[in-house]
Amino acid sequence: MSDYGKTYGLWRDAAEPDWTAYTRHAFVQGLGDGTLPRSAFLHYLRQDYVFLIHFSRAWALAVTKSETVEEMRHAAATVQALICDELALHVGVCAAEGIAEAELFATQEETANLAYTRYVLDAGHSGDLLDLLAALAPCVIGYGEIGARLAAEHGSDGPYGEWIATYAGEGFQQACRDVGALIDGAMARRLGDDPHASPRWQALCDRFRTATRLEIGFWDMGMAGA
Amino acid sequence: MSDYGKTYGLWRDAAEPDWTAYTRHAFVQGLGDGTLPRSAFLHYLRQDYVFLIHFSRAWALAVTKSETVEEMRHAAATVQALICDELALHVGVCAAEGIAEAELFATQEETANLAYTRYVLDAGHSGDLLDLLAALAPCVIGYGEIGARLAAEHGSDGPYGEWIATYAGEGFQQACRDVGALIDGAMARRLGDDPHASPRWQALCDRFRTATRLEIGFWDMGMAGA
Amino acid sequence: MSDYGKTYGLWRDAAEPDWTAYTRHAFVQGLGDGTLPRSAFLHYLRQDYVFLIHFSRAWALAVTKSETVEEMRHAAATVQALICDELALHVGVCAAEGIAEAELFATQEETANLAYTRYVLDAGHSGDLLDLLAALAPCVIGYGEIGARLAAEHGSDGPYGEWIATYAGEGFQQACRDVGALIDGAMARRLGDDPHASPRWQALCDRFRTATRLEIGFWDMGMAGA
Amino acid sequence: MSDYGKTYGLWRDAAEPDWTAYTRHAFVQGLGDGTLPRSAFLHYLRQDYVFLIHFSRAWALAVTKSETVEEMRHAAATVQALICDELALHVGVCAAEGIAEAELFATQEETANLAYTRYVLDAGHSGDLLDLLAALAPCVIGYGEIGARLAAEHGSDGPYGEWIATYAGEGFQQACRDVGALIDGAMARRLGDDPHASPRWQALCDRFRTATRLEIGFWDMGMAGA
Repeated sequence: MSDYGKTYGLWRDAAEPDWTAYTRHAFVQGLGDGTLPRSAFLHYLRQDYVFLIHFSRAWALAVTKSETVEEMRHAAATVQALICDELALHVGVCAAEGIAEAELFATQEETANLAYTRYVLDAGHSGDLLDLLAALAPCVIGYGEIGARLAAEHGSDGPYGEWIATYAGEGFQQACRDVGALIDGAMARRLGDDPHASPRWQALCDRFRTATRLEIGFWDMGMAGA
Repeated sequence: MSDYGKTYGLWRDAAEPDWTAYTRHAFVQGLGDGTLPRSAFLHYLRQDYVFLIHFSRAWALAVTKSETVEEMRHAAATVQALICDELALHVGVCAAEGIAEAELFATQEETANLAYTRYVLDAGHSGDLLDLLAALAPCVIGYGEIGARLAAEHGSDGPYGEWIATYAGEGFQQACRDVGALIDGAMARRLGDDPHASPRWQALCDRFRTATRLEIGFWDMGMAGA
Repeated sequence: MSDYGKTYGLWRDAAEPDWTAYTRHAFVQGLGDGTLPRSAFLHYLRQDYVFLIHFSRAWALAVTKSETVEEMRHAAATVQALICDELALHVGVCAAEGIAEAELFATQEETANLAYTRYVLDAGHSGDLLDLLAALAPCVIGYGEIGARLAAEHGSDGPYGEWIATYAGEGFQQACRDVGALIDGAMARRLGDDPHASPRWQALCDRFRTATRLEIGFWDMGMAGA
Repeated sequence: MSDYGKTYGLWRDAAEPDWTAYTRHAFVQGLGDGTLPRSAFLHYLRQDYVFLIHFSRAWALAVTKSETVEEMRHAAATVQALICDELALHVGVCAAEGIAEAELFATQEETANLAYTRYVLDAGHSGDLLDLLAALAPCVIGYGEIGARLAAEHGSDGPYGEWIATYAGEGFQQACRDVGALIDGAMARRLGDDPHASPRWQALCDRFRTATRLEIGFWDMGMAGA
């Protein structure tokens, strides 16, 4: 199992069985073995483009809620990676299918999509950086875990090989380790050496689990688009 | 048709056919003629309790985004009415059914519920007071329109008469007219005498329509809870 | 010495000698013994009117950052008290001096004023409810402490008797106790039974102290307006 | 005179005589002719390091308030430039004077400094992207104008030549033109072809002027640190 830091491991375990339902969802299995209908994948990609825009906004919110230059640099680098790299992947794949970026941008958000990103943003606005990071973590690190597993099990030659290679690749894996380290540092700074003794521990686990459930809803939405 | 101000009428017309789908939803018709299953009503009430908490937060956000003392007073009075009066209605009805407030508060938010309130909050955080008001309006004023119509068509003697009487009552109707006046004033202050000539007009209509669609999803959720 | 709760006492002690410099400032002493120039008082009142508008916005922000209905009710009640009662006091006193509310609203904020309220608002946006409450506390509770002391030492017959009576009065004193209880509850909920063992303790003390220093700057501004 | 876009020129003219007081402040003249005391410069640099941290947070807030991918990219690129490049300049100059970054970070913010950045952040939180950009503009573009003029008048051989070269350099000048274009685009998108006919025009000019006045206060603070 991937190792993206101490806190992440604890949050993931506390989010079971939802975590497994997310990371081993039928949509994910279909990406791995290549059986996912292309229409479902494209439906997902269009929604995910809009998702990434609001997810980038949430990482930018993390910059505004940082307490150290280190935290700011981490969060700002993530915003750049999302806007410059990950968004470009979607634009590229969709362009190859004849879908222009303006069309992607005009995609009407489905409720499952909108619910997820606005929940993350509100986690940040209502709480502090930890509340926000707990809501941001499942997407970043979950995709890292999914990508690494699918690459190990299926390689990246199948019809969704480019997707798998992106998230299994060293660039994204390093980003996951960086986010894990950011979370561990932010926890230590605010909650001390024994975070799960804090009264906030349960609420943070709940944030992580809610975001995990919203990931499941996102895959469901992708499947329904087939 | 109820008259809650100039802007509201324009936004409502622009949101058709979604506006009619919201205000004449099967859930609404069932409230009026008394055929709505009690289980659906209670499911709705539990979710609506959590909804009102986050909706109150969104009205409090409107206080922080006001530019005049008049706007602040309006928004602050709405927060008080929501927290003190409307929340109490839910607590009372649920108590009569043996559901305690602590249980209400612990209700797990469904996605349709969470999507709606977090969308409204983000409308406020990402934009200005107008963006927030356009997302707040469909719930407040739509309930006023629904309450007034159901009272006229069915009276308030049926099994859901207390619900109808609340929203048809002079207190809530006045609140709707106040919100309509707040919106008209805020529009004039920021967009001038001819708001629909503003480049922002379409985006504000879209906000209102998105919130209207999320209302439809909320009723759907209520029906599904039967 | 006034008793407005456990946390307040600890924060106040940690903010010495700034706390004494704030609560026993020459401006305060002049309010008590009646030697404060009327021009300084009116200058202060005009600035304080604008202060209260932004301070109310900050309390409204606290509603959006509450985690329980209890916290929300406390914060919303404070918004109402500030907008309906305390703002009215300023309007009344100024009206008696021939200064209309529109003129008050148009007062150009001095830097010492602007710095204070925007610092408090940012404490809320960058952190969680505790960060915001630590920045809100010195004004509310400090005025309670000042009012009670001045009333005990000087009574309320002097030229600034109405001001003293307002803050020494049972209404405001109860508000201070309520805010103290809100803070104690919010601390216990988030930091546990031993808040000063939390890594956040020092940062919260620093917030309280910074707001205290900004209070000193506010009195300095009042004196300079003589 | 530098040309950083249409809106900028209008805002600058509307901010006179404050704009001239800011851009031709004694501190600026001392940077140009080399007569500024080193102690004043270092005092300014320490405060400006903390300023840049909060100013970066404000640009990150702009990412969260963007309505197009283009606006997001502009704002995110500015965050990166501030955190990676401009902050590094301060760290480098201060390191050469024996001041470590940890010491810079621990600098106690003076009121003039704190007032400025928190005002900008609140402009963003209380309004929309235009309110935020109007408060962000004077620092970015004013420094571009100052740098270009000092380089033309004095070259960059004097004791503050590195400072002048940074802001007169093509990198910073291009950043100013980019920000000017971002502002022009954001204005057209929200206010249309004739922004100064909008009811918001005056309020936006006021935001720009207030930030300009806070710049004057910042230079005053620098001088006082001599």
